[in-house]
Amino acid sequence: MSAQPVLIAGAWRPAEASGTFNAVSPLTGQVLDDTYPVSTREDIDDALAAGAAAAHSLEDVSREQRAAFLEVYADRIDARAEEISSTAHEETALPFSPRVHDVELPRTSGQLRQAAAAVREGSWVEATIDTATGIRSRLGPLGGPVVVFGPNNFPLAFNGVSGGDFAAAIAAGNPVIAKAHTSHPTTSRLLAEEAFEAVKTVGLPESTVQLIYRMSHADGEYMVSHPTVGATGYTGARATGLVLKSAADRAGKPIYLELSSVNPVYILPGALRERAADLATEYVTSVLMGAGQFCTNPGILVLLTGAATDAFIGDVRSKFEEAAAGPLLGEGVGSKLASAVSALVQDGAEVLAGGNPAAGDGFRFENTLLRVDGDAFVENPVGLQREAFGNAALLVVAKDEEQAVEIAGSFEGNLTGCVYSHTAGEDDALYDRVAPPLRRRVGRLLNDKMPTGVAVCCAMNHGGPFPATGHPGFTAVGIPGSIRRFAMLQSYDGVRVGRLPPELRDESPDVGMWRSIDGRWMQGDVGS
Amino acid sequence: MSAQPVLIAGAWRPAEASGTFNAVSPLTGQVLDDTYPVSTREDIDDALAAGAAAAHSLEDVSREQRAAFLEVYADRIDARAEEISSTAHEETALPFSPRVHDVELPRTSGQLRQAAAAVREGSWVEATIDTATGIRSRLGPLGGPVVVFGPNNFPLAFNGVSGGDFAAAIAAGNPVIAKAHTSHPTTSRLLAEEAFEAVKTVGLPESTVQLIYRMSHADGEYMVSHPTVGATGYTGARATGLVLKSAADRAGKPIYLELSSVNPVYILPGALRERAADLATEYVTSVLMGAGQFCTNPGILVLLTGAATDAFIGDVRSKFEEAAAGPLLGEGVGSKLASAVSALVQDGAEVLAGGNPAAGDGFRFENTLLRVDGDAFVENPVGLQREAFGNAALLVVAKDEEQAVEIAGSFEGNLTGCVYSHTAGEDDALYDRVAPPLRRRVGRLLNDKMPTGVAVCCAMNHGGPFPATGHPGFTAVGIPGSIRRFAMLQSYDGVRVGRLPPELRDESPDVGMWRSIDGRWMQGDVGS
Repeated sequence: MSAQPVLIAGAWRPAEASGTFNAVSPLTGQVLDDTYPVSTREDIDDALAAGAAAAHSLEDVSREQRAAFLEVYADRIDARAEEISSTAHEETALPFSPRVHDVELPRTSGQLRQAAAAVREGSWVEATIDTATGIRSRLGPLGGPVVVFGPNNFPLAFNGVSGGDFAAAIAAGNPVIAKAHTSHPTTSRLLAEEAFEAVKTVGLPESTVQLIYRMSHADGEYMVSHPTVGATGYTGARATGLVLKSAADRAGKPIYLELSSVNPVYILPGALRERAADLATEYVTSVLMGAGQFCTNPGILVLLTGAATDAFIGDVRSKFEEAAAGPLLGEGVGSKLASAVSALVQDGAEVLAGGNPAAGDGFRFENTLLRVDGDAFVENPVGLQREAFGNAALLVVAKDEEQAVEIAGSFEGNLTGCVYSHTAGEDDALYDRVAPPLRRRVGRLLNDKMPTGVAVCCAMNHGGPFPATGHPGFTAVGIPGSIRRFAMLQSYDGVRVGRLPPELRDESPDVGMWRSIDGRWMQGDVGS
Repeated sequence: MSAQPVLIAGAWRPAEASGTFNAVSPLTGQVLDDTYPVSTREDIDDALAAGAAAAHSLEDVSREQRAAFLEVYADRIDARAEEISSTAHEETALPFSPRVHDVELPRTSGQLRQAAAAVREGSWVEATIDTATGIRSRLGPLGGPVVVFGPNNFPLAFNGVSGGDFAAAIAAGNPVIAKAHTSHPTTSRLLAEEAFEAVKTVGLPESTVQLIYRMSHADGEYMVSHPTVGATGYTGARATGLVLKSAADRAGKPIYLELSSVNPVYILPGALRERAADLATEYVTSVLMGAGQFCTNPGILVLLTGAATDAFIGDVRSKFEEAAAGPLLGEGVGSKLASAVSALVQDGAEVLAGGNPAAGDGFRFENTLLRVDGDAFVENPVGLQREAFGNAALLVVAKDEEQAVEIAGSFEGNLTGCVYSHTAGEDDALYDRVAPPLRRRVGRLLNDKMPTGVAVCCAMNHGGPFPATGHPGFTAVGIPGSIRRFAMLQSYDGVRVGRLPPELRDESPDVGMWRSIDGRWMQGDVGS
């Protein structure tokens, strides 16, 4: 059977391939039917050249037309929801319902529509007008295609051809070259088919969306550092991401990465006294949801030593043992999880539950609960905060408040950090010591809730200091924040009125557009 | 004579030095009296530790207090204007008046006051409130000190201890470790003395401002990549900047760089027909101002071949020959300029004027005008767009419009790009072909004016794609844009009201603060 075509330069065409691969069903362990190509440098060069031309053409495309594309595409995803969701289920083992069909797919089309609304309204460009000097600025497109590498764990909402980075890059006016995750190529193909039809329906440059399935690591580095590339978005494993980061950094090309996060959670003693049973349920639900395969999975829970903590741990342990081990996204996830658990044990963590591959269809690992004393953690914080992606969690039991605070200061950069405290203030003094060091290390600080829910809203930060991401100033989720990553700051100094982009003229191009005029955010025309 | 002390950990103290150095007067070539230390790793470690502690303390300092510091410091600079300006003149050869005393010093104190106003008003934090989800975000401090390396060419306005990066880093709530430029250590010391007095007057953490004069390159790399550092700002030579960038990138630490720029200018044929004499004067004035030692110096001028261009070039050549060669910032600037001119000649540029060291006090180089055909330029754009920092300029004569457009597409990233065109529209068709490729490659696009003026205003972009800077999304000049570089995005999810930073509470902490509430920019309280 011949390999599926790639989408390059406005056509589904046979790849210039160096080989092929097939995805494996994580439900059954069976090799799936469709064969996909490993692209060579020729495909990459073609995609880059077509992407550069599309980037230039897109500069003349109206905001309305870009918005329309995002909406038509969203509608087409919704119309093909059954097939896309069942394919994603088959390729990832994520439940068809509710997860893929009822949650992730609507989130994906919803994100595209939110991006469309942002494009149409235009406030995200932060049009800034200084009438005294005549200087005006906005965020504008990058002048080259954005390369998006999607992860294994969100086959729709973070897919390179449909997810948050895709929506943000298009909203900013850039074409996208998507690299499918090799665990779900057919899902990616179905999505790209709809994206490409939407491109044609709306009349965007045909290379606005391109799709490649796989390439060598060297070609990946080549792509993210290529002179014609505008920027890269990458969500995935840390090791691969760091290689791409290094290549992009050397070339001075922006790269936005989401690499790893253990999302520390604190439950302070008063909260435990107050509501231990509820907290155990809430914690176990969050940590085992989707077999723990979320970027914001709470991988480390910090507690203070004592009888209440011992009882809480016993409760959590029982729940871990009682819950069925969920299916993992693939064989590789299982083997990496096993390695990470061994390494944690090697570094002194004790296995309270699980620790071994589990029975059941496909690839599964026992719900694994690990425990370590605070003394051991502060002696080897690097080793013991190793991410174990999947249904495993580490409990760190601090010997006193001092140590709990010290632990907060020993975390690397994370997406989230969370503190549960007594509702009537009994933990407030300790909160005030724990929260500041945690705040510095996380993009999103939570109180009294688990980090696994990521609302797609204007104030979300799905980002955080390195190594959670590559830069602490940007979010991958949430509009308009995520859009500005894929834009450059463009100042116009003395540029004649007819040559200014619409957002920077005296007359506002849209009644809803917020602009900063002489330091004042306003809607409407200059002088109004 | 013993070396001057460094300012570390809240005290002027003797350095842990590996050696000493003295600055040289570029006016006379004489070694100046004051001796300065080369700091060792011990000094660096002390500064980093004190800076980290100050960063944490500053989190509890009110906006009012930070603003007051910036204003007290600005006042103290103004009060010591004579001494600071004459010292800067002595160390840099930049004219005491008007340049240093009447322009750069007021700009410097003015920037500090603008930063103070931004801190007091607070809109720069982009407080974002989503009432539906309860999630709120703002830009907050980095949690560690910002290291600032200032350049040789603006001893006050870009000085590590008083310039734009300093003001922005402090405004964002971070302490600064300034690295003085070794060409003007005494100027830096005088400024740091005033900064430190202002720190004490206002009662900020005493390590909010620290100053080191010199260190090894290895220690520079160590500093910018250190775990406790928040970020780095660097303005200076490209080679050194790239070494620091590489070290910071590997550690995942933000670094903002201003590296090099040739600031291409186009004069289109209609503009030349219309106002050649005025343009020649305007161009020569801009290119030779301050002996060409500006980041936005127009290093490359693109013209179309023809008799008018030949006449214009003749006029420019005469003006180059007639104008006195201004003093350079130092011997190194002269020798680098000579090397760059040789390299350009090696690559095919013809010397129309100058080309050799010049007579006069201190270090001078003849006003140097170079010319190359478009054919040669497009064959070797990398070599021929080499920056020649100083009073040298390259004219590129394109054979036709096609080639003029091609040249625009061959530039690296620059701070600015400029197009002069006929006022009544005779060049408009060509403008429409030249401006788009130029726009993609520059931070600030100008019409009919030279790029050497950099207004400190909200819409300024003193930035641009690599290698002009390290990231196309940020500006080093202009408030509030420059501040956000030294901030992290902090989201608060379900955080109890009393624990939110003031900017994110329902009640606005300041009547002037703009906040984005449910997508609407407004002043006042939530719900008002």
